Amino acid sequence: MTDQLLPSWRDGATRSAVVDFLDAADEIPHERRVAVFDNDGTLWCEKPRYTQLDFFVWELNHAVKDRPALQSVPEYAAVLGGDMAEVQDIGLPRVAVALVALFEKMEPEAFEARVRAFFDETRHPDSGLRYDQMVYQPMLELMQALEDRGFTNCIVTGGGTEFVRAISRRVYGVDQERVVGTLVRYTLADRNGRRVLVRTSLLEGEVNEGEAKISNIQMALGRQPSLAAGNSPGDADMLEYTNSLDGPSLALLVNHDDAEREYAYRSEAGSFDAEEAVEATATTLGWTQISMRDDWATVFPDP
Amino acid sequence: MTDQLLPSWRDGATRSAVVDFLDAADEIPHERRVAVFDNDGTLWCEKPRYTQLDFFVWELNHAVKDRPALQSVPEYAAVLGGDMAEVQDIGLPRVAVALVALFEKMEPEAFEARVRAFFDETRHPDSGLRYDQMVYQPMLELMQALEDRGFTNCIVTGGGTEFVRAISRRVYGVDQERVVGTLVRYTLADRNGRRVLVRTSLLEGEVNEGEAKISNIQMALGRQPSLAAGNSPGDADMLEYTNSLDGPSLALLVNHDDAEREYAYRSEAGSFDAEEAVEATATTLGWTQISMRDDWATVFPDP
Repeated sequence: MTDQLLPSWRDGATRSAVVDFLDAADEIPHERRVAVFDNDGTLWCEKPRYTQLDFFVWELNHAVKDRPALQSVPEYAAVLGGDMAEVQDIGLPRVAVALVALFEKMEPEAFEARVRAFFDETRHPDSGLRYDQMVYQPMLELMQALEDRGFTNCIVTGGGTEFVRAISRRVYGVDQERVVGTLVRYTLADRNGRRVLVRTSLLEGEVNEGEAKISNIQMALGRQPSLAAGNSPGDADMLEYTNSLDGPSLALLVNHDDAEREYAYRSEAGSFDAEEAVEATATTLGWTQISMRDDWATVFPDP
Repeated sequence: MTDQLLPSWRDGATRSAVVDFLDAADEIPHERRVAVFDNDGTLWCEKPRYTQLDFFVWELNHAVKDRPALQSVPEYAAVLGGDMAEVQDIGLPRVAVALVALFEKMEPEAFEARVRAFFDETRHPDSGLRYDQMVYQPMLELMQALEDRGFTNCIVTGGGTEFVRAISRRVYGVDQERVVGTLVRYTLADRNGRRVLVRTSLLEGEVNEGEAKISNIQMALGRQPSLAAGNSPGDADMLEYTNSLDGPSLALLVNHDDAEREYAYRSEAGSFDAEEAVEATATTLGWTQISMRDDWATVFPDP
């Protein structure tokens, strides 16, 4: 049990709603003491680009050194050109699938090693910090407070399951089996007479966004959460579902309105409609909205 | 930490192999301190029939009271007639799919309530005990010893994920998200204006047997186990895989050779070939074979 509860949260309605939920923990049966957190934009920074996208680009830059022909693949050319408009034109899902293919035939441990090397070697383009230092200190404190009260914290991300698992325990204290994301399929292969598991470039199931997050929580975790936290339209279904279940529950929506310490999404072209829509839903359904600017005294941990 | 290590295991080569592995725990990194256990025939009794099959039959008997027309469905007729030869003729997979359909449109909590009612109301046909008392005391002790050494115990079963999850914490101390089995797909439905998750009768992915157990361990748990325990040909891939990974590992095969206290499978018609094949593999690959008759001083916990 930490000495002080949620020290990086400023007093106010948001903090009170969170504390009220924590105070109600005794009323929640063990199997419902599950908290599900989106990752990008909810537990760590997702701007200027998803960390996983930067990882893919880093991997692609390594790969083209060995196989220059990759540069003529349209999806890779768009990414290597750094032209986000072109990437959007091709479509992020199609680009993502092409990037996933870079890891085909790789064993799980080799993939993990690539992720570790990425975090060690690269820095966030705006802050110059390690990407895994760009986590939200107030959310780490909330996860700790939940764990102190017998909750199991889980990450339910649209990102790649294995990418997040490679850092989940070290960064968030969340064991790998408690990370639910977008999965690739595996196949067995023979390596020098030894049967090993290797990645394919096929997705197993759907991308873990929207309604898929609800059914994947059931299939992967088998428990109904009482707390859900997210920040984007892709989290709205999960928040609504959690909030509609019987018993005490808390739906948290992180609003990125802090241009000084992080990012103010509404000032960006194109993002306004989606942000506005999910905030309107939050207001209608009574979710607790976190203003990063007003509700958090500290955003990132001390480096 | 329990006072005495593995009290229900008799001294001998099997117990020594298990103790040696436990003593090597310090050499195993945290992420590899994962133990995967098959359920039927490895953690609890699977004779004269799989417990889950008896649950399905119990549910079917309830269902036909409300909907007598179900009796004319061939799969149901075979089951209701208690004719295992007929069930085998139709094929257990096809019968299982038909039985899974009995729970279509049920919410997860309602399904769990059915499982709980089954365990409360029925008794094992041979012993007269509750089905959840038919767990192997020596395996519970092993799971405790592993947990004491920082291991995470997981169940990797060919059975229905939700069926096992309904009892996994109470019976084995294993949280729901650490149960990996055969999954049904879910869909969202509207119940009185509320969006709820309901079961379908479709499988999500394959039946969790054989090679599927290996890829499902990776996809669901994201860690490579260092201990695997099983008892049947459907576990052989998982045991071989675990045993072939780098670092200390233990592959355990439970041999059912105790006609007095449990069952001696080899005395049953038809089961000889499969049992013999997996035991031969175990010998070739150096797995640790457990003789229920010789290695276990106690089989079931005191009621």
